Amino acid sequence: MPKDELKTSFKWIGTRPDRPDGLDKVTGRARYGADFSLPNMLHAAVVRSPHAHARIKKIDASKALALDGVKAVVTRADLPTGLSGEDLNLQDNTLAGDVALYDGHAVAAVAATSALLAKDAAKLIEVEYEVLPHVIDVDDAFRADAPVIRPGLADHSVPKGAPGNVTRYIEFGHGDVAAGFAEADLVREETYKTEATHQGYIEPHACVGQMGADGKGEMWVCTQGQWYVRRMCAAVLGTEASQLRVTPSEIGGGFGGKTTIFMEPLALALSRKAGGRPVKLVMSRSEVLRATGPTASASMDVKIGMKKDGRITAGTVSFRMQGGAFPGMSPIGEALPCAFACYDMPNVHHEAYEVLANRPKAAAYRAPGSPMAAFAVESLVDEMSRELGLDPIDVRLTNGAKEGTKSSYGPKFNQIGLVETLEAAKAHPNYAAPLGPNQGRGVASGFWFNHGGETSVSVAIGEDGTVQVSVGTPDIGGSRASIALMTAETFGIDYDDVRVNVVETGALGVNEPTHGSRATHSNGKAMYEAAGQAIRELCKRAAADWGIDAEAVEWADGAAQPAGPNAGKFPPMSLREIAGKMGSTGGPISGHHEITMGGVGASFGTHVVDVEVDPETGRTTILRYLVVQDAGRAIHPAYVEGQYQGGAAQGIGWALNESYIYGKDGRLQNTVFLDYRIPVASDLPMIDTVIVEVPNPGHPYGVRGVGETGITPPLPAIASAVAAATGVRLRELPMSPPKVLAAIKARG
Amino acid sequence: MPKDELKTSFKWIGTRPDRPDGLDKVTGRARYGADFSLPNMLHAAVVRSPHAHARIKKIDASKALALDGVKAVVTRADLPTGLSGEDLNLQDNTLAGDVALYDGHAVAAVAATSALLAKDAAKLIEVEYEVLPHVIDVDDAFRADAPVIRPGLADHSVPKGAPGNVTRYIEFGHGDVAAGFAEADLVREETYKTEATHQGYIEPHACVGQMGADGKGEMWVCTQGQWYVRRMCAAVLGTEASQLRVTPSEIGGGFGGKTTIFMEPLALALSRKAGGRPVKLVMSRSEVLRATGPTASASMDVKIGMKKDGRITAGTVSFRMQGGAFPGMSPIGEALPCAFACYDMPNVHHEAYEVLANRPKAAAYRAPGSPMAAFAVESLVDEMSRELGLDPIDVRLTNGAKEGTKSSYGPKFNQIGLVETLEAAKAHPNYAAPLGPNQGRGVASGFWFNHGGETSVSVAIGEDGTVQVSVGTPDIGGSRASIALMTAETFGIDYDDVRVNVVETGALGVNEPTHGSRATHSNGKAMYEAAGQAIRELCKRAAADWGIDAEAVEWADGAAQPAGPNAGKFPPMSLREIAGKMGSTGGPISGHHEITMGGVGASFGTHVVDVEVDPETGRTTILRYLVVQDAGRAIHPAYVEGQYQGGAAQGIGWALNESYIYGKDGRLQNTVFLDYRIPVASDLPMIDTVIVEVPNPGHPYGVRGVGETGITPPLPAIASAVAAATGVRLRELPMSPPKVLAAIKARG
Repeated sequence: MPKDELKTSFKWIGTRPDRPDGLDKVTGRARYGADFSLPNMLHAAVVRSPHAHARIKKIDASKALALDGVKAVVTRADLPTGLSGEDLNLQDNTLAGDVALYDGHAVAAVAATSALLAKDAAKLIEVEYEVLPHVIDVDDAFRADAPVIRPGLADHSVPKGAPGNVTRYIEFGHGDVAAGFAEADLVREETYKTEATHQGYIEPHACVGQMGADGKGEMWVCTQGQWYVRRMCAAVLGTEASQLRVTPSEIGGGFGGKTTIFMEPLALALSRKAGGRPVKLVMSRSEVLRATGPTASASMDVKIGMKKDGRITAGTVSFRMQGGAFPGMSPIGEALPCAFACYDMPNVHHEAYEVLANRPKAAAYRAPGSPMAAFAVESLVDEMSRELGLDPIDVRLTNGAKEGTKSSYGPKFNQIGLVETLEAAKAHPNYAAPLGPNQGRGVASGFWFNHGGETSVSVAIGEDGTVQVSVGTPDIGGSRASIALMTAETFGIDYDDVRVNVVETGALGVNEPTHGSRATHSNGKAMYEAAGQAIRELCKRAAADWGIDAEAVEWADGAAQPAGPNAGKFPPMSLREIAGKMGSTGGPISGHHEITMGGVGASFGTHVVDVEVDPETGRTTILRYLVVQDAGRAIHPAYVEGQYQGGAAQGIGWALNESYIYGKDGRLQNTVFLDYRIPVASDLPMIDTVIVEVPNPGHPYGVRGVGETGITPPLPAIASAVAAATGVRLRELPMSPPKVLAAIKARG
Repeated sequence: MPKDELKTSFKWIGTRPDRPDGLDKVTGRARYGADFSLPNMLHAAVVRSPHAHARIKKIDASKALALDGVKAVVTRADLPTGLSGEDLNLQDNTLAGDVALYDGHAVAAVAATSALLAKDAAKLIEVEYEVLPHVIDVDDAFRADAPVIRPGLADHSVPKGAPGNVTRYIEFGHGDVAAGFAEADLVREETYKTEATHQGYIEPHACVGQMGADGKGEMWVCTQGQWYVRRMCAAVLGTEASQLRVTPSEIGGGFGGKTTIFMEPLALALSRKAGGRPVKLVMSRSEVLRATGPTASASMDVKIGMKKDGRITAGTVSFRMQGGAFPGMSPIGEALPCAFACYDMPNVHHEAYEVLANRPKAAAYRAPGSPMAAFAVESLVDEMSRELGLDPIDVRLTNGAKEGTKSSYGPKFNQIGLVETLEAAKAHPNYAAPLGPNQGRGVASGFWFNHGGETSVSVAIGEDGTVQVSVGTPDIGGSRASIALMTAETFGIDYDDVRVNVVETGALGVNEPTHGSRATHSNGKAMYEAAGQAIRELCKRAAADWGIDAEAVEWADGAAQPAGPNAGKFPPMSLREIAGKMGSTGGPISGHHEITMGGVGASFGTHVVDVEVDPETGRTTILRYLVVQDAGRAIHPAYVEGQYQGGAAQGIGWALNESYIYGKDGRLQNTVFLDYRIPVASDLPMIDTVIVEVPNPGHPYGVRGVGETGITPPLPAIASAVAAATGVRLRELPMSPPKVLAAIKARG
């Protein structure tokens, strides 16, 4: 869309009305995954491997099946064979085949008439294991002498001689890196490491599935994407996608972790085996942490060359990332392009190895790959800025990507807002706030591509002139509100006259999940086109009523208006008026749009954080936190701010506390929220936000996704703040009190 | 659609595969209205008037509300004021205002934590009534001295001096009736009477409703039309239609009786008052019979003039019909045009009075109005044919409406199949079967307009090339099967690769209910147009892949085929192949169509019935029953036959046994199925069927609706058969054993 077509004054966009699902959510009326039940329903439990790596020699379910009330047991033998690629990955993760690949890997599932009985029955399913050698840490797994856990899975990209657990390799860059380093006044190279973290969504996975012998099924499920659940379950079970109807529940957080399936096919397979009775399956927190999809852990080398004035002359990264025991699951493809995306890099080179380890199959987590890459690159930029005595924001302004910059990963940037976020951060009072002893300030920028993707939206006019929008993306961060605002704006009607409905798969064309910061962006664009179609039909009906050409009618202020030579000849005809008689003027009025949405606006943000580190305990307290990010256009500013704050909060947790802790036996040791410690309200100050608006020319209302970039800068910003406060640079996350204390003690 | 475009050879259309909902329904997996529950759900009970007509002086709910677990009571005071027309009717019927208008009229409703508790609480709600004079029978209500039960409701059509309970009057005709009668060799005039009957659907009304203080609501309900429920509940409650999402359950019969609302707004009003907790409301059979919508009762004068050769020279009807205590609810508008629709009438006149009585608000029942009218007219045609010694089928062939006939109600008939049904009936072995003593044969024809109506359909291609069709009409008689067959035919794919989904209101544009025999007809046409849109896009994608013009691609055999100069240049590209990559070739592929469907094909049928009447008891046994009806095109012949048989079965019940029986006190006396006797399997022989196919030129596959005509001929056909068997003509329904016996005895 040409820039000059972008509207800049609005009635609804930019306002902050109550969200449509607000009352539901504060009164408990909203229904989440486990809030759904059906008559005659069974409950399921899953038998999971207690070993990080073990051959399954025998499964004996006879004692479980002998229990009164136990209706079905499924093992891998109940699933079809012959799958490949990601479908096989999904099936392998749904139920282990010959080998259990990680602690918590599902081995069998049982359905019974009560949840307690199902749990008892699961304990009676006897599994005979032969324990195999395991490897957990990404660097251990990358060693030439590591046990090779799944030989033969390396794809054609892997260089000859790479270690046996490497399954994929990526390499790209531009310019002359050697020349660039030679030109630099300062060249530094460091290694950084991050542990796996979990999205920490409050709602565990839950579903009710039903499938008959006829292959027809239904599922109610907590998910970010009902079509993905449909496609993946159909693939794992060998059924047809359209024969399965998937209804998404409300969702208590997803952050990428609910864009795939974990136990959903088990509910359907159990139902199919139990004569089509519905089966409910709800994960415990321990199952969520052991057997859903955390981030990858990463080990990362970064090398940067810088001139004395802060100008970056060259940079290289070499990453090793694992994504669990399944090929193709590490975010190396996203981490590398994000690494230097904030910088105008004349000479740059990226490479990364994907490494298998005996860990759960990684899933997306908010800007997957970008936080780790930013931790490495932004930490080193900060170290070098300090060494050269330069202001870290100035260094980023010197090198910052802007419109027209050839990005570090190739394509040229369109209109983007990184520089604007840096300037706003520099001008913010937080950046000038005085610091006391043991206090330090850190700065970092972050990047996310944003995503558009497959989108189907329908708009239907009600008989009373109210408008409903049917979308396929579960509402996680307020998308019903943002889409309703854009719809009200487009039709020129009241926000309360719009209802945005998240619908099941059987009611709409294919949609990708709520991921990639796409929901407001893509649905907004598709709604705009669908509404345009409906508005053209509304004008046509008015024109027919007036007996004039449809082309001589305009839509303005929620009404058809005679235009051109007919202007003023008839009073405007409101949407309500046209809708009231649509049945007798041609039929129902709707609009539809299907698109694989492009035109995403790249997203940049800059964070400033002040910390105080207690030298006695190593505990880090966040004193002030500022998020500045480009929203393109903030449709509902309160929810944009919420996304900024949420991303920062998760990044703070990742930086300071969260990590998967494995024992020597390869078993996960912190499987509840008491031990896997996400930040709670008392851990955080009010997070300050500044919304920068550099409109995205690819969207009718200028929207960029805002959901993900916010988790990227906290990791390096806090590391730099801790370094400023303590004089020691931590290059391994999390910066938990024992590690900080040890570093302080080592400094002496 | 021009006739020559109508296809005549098919792969799927006309076959009899298993219905998609078959396994669900035989295994109990299908979920009906009462099979839905939600966490935290309340149960409701309704307080109903025990009086046929009474002023409500006071409602005291304090004792009920004092019960632990009682959460809300609603009375009329909880509903908004200011409604008019049908909205006011609906509200008046939902909860009585100042006056209870019939035995069973809802007066208050209560929600409590269990169904038993709700019933107990309902008994504790004290209502003080002042009993008013009532009137039940339609002729009594039409008397000048009848109590006027709702003064002031007569509309402008009512002639001056009409009795006080008359609310509407219709009159029309053509030709010169007096001249026609003068020309006749035989003129006869008789009066016929039918009692109210109930649709007798096996599943009582049931719903779960939820509504918040924000006006947003959801409803799961057994209905023929979720958009009607949405619109009507919104009107009664004063909320916006689009803010209410209505999901239809499976439906255990409707036959017109579930095209409107009865207790649904109560569930929502109770929920709103109980803080948004869901409320379940399930009617008992007694509530269904007392307080839902039976047919009108009717009193009908018919006069016909006939030449000796059977040619009809003139006809008049004068009907009095009541539709309960609510204006506008009698089917006089449908009954009159149906009366002589089977005949080419040179001179005809119709008039009808709508009369209020203290009875429940009538609802549609299969071809509403037509069976009563047919009972009167077809009975008299039979009497006169016998008197003139003519074969009753020959008389109908002599006068039968055909293509080009100006119908008795005005418009000219398009291509229709009445004559073909008469010829097929005459040629059928049943018409020549020998009859014994006390046995008799009756013949009658019947008519229904059929209906198109507001229709929105979406077709979406799945990633695996399977196709889903989203429709808005609950599947009563196999419409999922018929729509799937037409979809498979249109795309050229397998029946099992199609899933037809009945969706909730929030997911699609407005749809009228499954009524008027419209589901297969209207959805078929809309699916055809929507599929065409999708097919054009599929061809475009193939063309882009091949690098040729989209116009040079045809769709055949489930695949895009290069055509014209490109024919044979590329191998066909299947739907599955195109669908598999649609995400990267432009986005999801769907098709949509919204229409107020015209092009209905008028429906005619002819029935032949043989009965034996036991002269000792007056009991009538159906010996043979033949239905011949024009389907236009039988998409799934087994379900067409099922419709024919079902219509006949209901007509047989209406003719022989069913009726509302009121006491002198105005209370309904037969409120359970033991006393309100619908036919059971042992009452009926196998009903023979012949499907005539005179394609409807208004439909791409030639479909006419088949659901309703079948209930029309049984009433007169059986009356004529009983007359043939006994020598006495019954002109009042039902022809129950006592009445037949009395007539035989009176004959002597």
